[in-house]
Amino acid sequence: MHISELDTPSVLVDLDILDRNSQRMSDYVHSKGLTLRPHIKTHKIPAIALGEITKGAIGVTAAKPGEAVVMAEGGVQDIFVAYPIVSRKKADTLLALSDRARLSVSVDSLEAAQILAAASRDRGHDLSILVEIDVGFGRCGLQDDVSLVQLAHEIERLSGAHFGGLMFYPGHMMVPLEQQNELLPRVNARVESAYDALAKAGFETPVVSGGSTPMAYRSHEFSHLTELRPGMYLLNDRNLVTGGFATLDDCALTVLTTVVSKAVHDRVILDGGSKTFSSDRLLTGNHVGFGIVHADEDAVFYAMSEEHGHLDVSASKRRYSIGERLRIVPNHVCTTINMHNTIYGIRGERVEQIWTVAARGCVQ
Amino acid sequence: MHISELDTPSVLVDLDILDRNSQRMSDYVHSKGLTLRPHIKTHKIPAIALGEITKGAIGVTAAKPGEAVVMAEGGVQDIFVAYPIVSRKKADTLLALSDRARLSVSVDSLEAAQILAAASRDRGHDLSILVEIDVGFGRCGLQDDVSLVQLAHEIERLSGAHFGGLMFYPGHMMVPLEQQNELLPRVNARVESAYDALAKAGFETPVVSGGSTPMAYRSHEFSHLTELRPGMYLLNDRNLVTGGFATLDDCALTVLTTVVSKAVHDRVILDGGSKTFSSDRLLTGNHVGFGIVHADEDAVFYAMSEEHGHLDVSASKRRYSIGERLRIVPNHVCTTINMHNTIYGIRGERVEQIWTVAARGCVQ
Repeated sequence: MHISELDTPSVLVDLDILDRNSQRMSDYVHSKGLTLRPHIKTHKIPAIALGEITKGAIGVTAAKPGEAVVMAEGGVQDIFVAYPIVSRKKADTLLALSDRARLSVSVDSLEAAQILAAASRDRGHDLSILVEIDVGFGRCGLQDDVSLVQLAHEIERLSGAHFGGLMFYPGHMMVPLEQQNELLPRVNARVESAYDALAKAGFETPVVSGGSTPMAYRSHEFSHLTELRPGMYLLNDRNLVTGGFATLDDCALTVLTTVVSKAVHDRVILDGGSKTFSSDRLLTGNHVGFGIVHADEDAVFYAMSEEHGHLDVSASKRRYSIGERLRIVPNHVCTTINMHNTIYGIRGERVEQIWTVAARGCVQ
Repeated sequence: MHISELDTPSVLVDLDILDRNSQRMSDYVHSKGLTLRPHIKTHKIPAIALGEITKGAIGVTAAKPGEAVVMAEGGVQDIFVAYPIVSRKKADTLLALSDRARLSVSVDSLEAAQILAAASRDRGHDLSILVEIDVGFGRCGLQDDVSLVQLAHEIERLSGAHFGGLMFYPGHMMVPLEQQNELLPRVNARVESAYDALAKAGFETPVVSGGSTPMAYRSHEFSHLTELRPGMYLLNDRNLVTGGFATLDDCALTVLTTVVSKAVHDRVILDGGSKTFSSDRLLTGNHVGFGIVHADEDAVFYAMSEEHGHLDVSASKRRYSIGERLRIVPNHVCTTINMHNTIYGIRGERVEQIWTVAARGCVQ
């Protein structure tokens, strides 16, 4: 099928770019002796996860047990849930996968550890529980080494679980290089302190899991890091381009749209808005706008309605026609894919893959 | 089923509040001699649309042909697509419903009218085409009366279609009352001018379709208006409460969430973020935050990750526990429902309805 046969809006993934991004990350982690455990939140598609594993990833990361179920059913055999599970129902959903997938989780409370261990014990399983520490993002994660060592001891005392290592998420590091350089020593001081406190208490820390796409190629600069969990590296987006972490040529994902109105002077209206692109704002650069228009660098995607993309073309020399198609690089690739039931893998102008976004809506 | 049996995050719709909102709107339109054609973008569920029709709505409004298909398959027999259809494929998708539903559309270009008329003619149908005029929002819609009369003439000349009336969307009127009062005369001047120009050119304008939830109960103040197309009136949200268009007691929809982490001082983390609530910002009031926490007016829902809701509880006297549940009124009800495969209708603490969000992802 040719892409002209697709209705719009449709999400396109350039497979050549995806392959190149995947290979580049694979080469990087192997050169540094790190392991790669990509986060499937970005694509939510088992076939893409299996492709990452074929390229050398040791398994995947998921946030919700519902996502883990979809990945396991799709053939993924090693799943880390990097999210605090605090209900027995969710713990049971996850542990039901223990026959077919190697499971691990992270927690930052005794409550979560107890619930997970109980579900694991009832299945005769021994679950690897990593402890999350906060390295400055201020979302989840223990704040000090005393709490960390205490929770590690408590996990070791639980039947059905064992202490599996440290986890952190440097979500505050999608910032320019000089700011990353300022933050990195503080993150490392925190990780080193945690690691040393565990060692002093007699714990081995076999896994230190960290990283995210903006820091992915600097993962070897994190102290003690053994694995990284980037998601967006495979596809990239406007946030990463504007932040200097990727180039436009690295962006595998575009949204194919159609011009549906140009009745208002200096405006062009596309057939995709917040229900196509998500309403995620730009987190980098000037924080303005919702996407890059491939064919017109002077067009500003300045606003969205639910089903309309609003372009300001007052600075553009391009002539637009009703019905013509434009490809847009969205602000945030993860939330964009999450809007769609189906996305398309293309090579050049040919549609090679039709993927169901199988873990879409798995918020539980 | 009791709501405690639901996993989280889950979207709950209080059926008593929904019924009250529906009855109130029904009473209003009947008292003013207007017709109600609610926009299904808010809920995307045929059963809810049929409930609105039972309460007196004459049919529904949809944006995309894919939504119209879902509504027709669900039993809705009168569908207006208030969106410029500019591809033959989409026109054919819509016109294929002409056997089972009364169809109408709006356009703001000759291209759209020609494509729709051709698809209609090929089915032996005579499609009602309304022309959209811009009343100040600056998105779609013709800018002047000369273009309007010309397009009305062109539609009348097309085989398979006829001029059905005027359509407008006052999307710029979700503003405080005093600003609405300033805008209204300008909107009315525009509508009156359009209406008069059509009359002078010999056109009857049987339908003038306008309105949206923030102006819904002022619809009778619009000149020549015959029907209104609100969506959110049925459920309401934080945008409408903060803007003064609804009270918290009018909000039928809440998101049931669980506290999953409180490791960071003065923070409470919920198990729903931008993939549960959408990342729509607050368009009214102080434009800050992502939802109202039912149980704690001092908690500030200040940030979201994809699967985490970040509460600042530094000003709160409430004690939070890992695993406890909180109900949140989201910023924007339409984009919140769009994140979920299933939502739940409740009375008190009982789950009475389990609805599939059938038109979710119908962006085409």
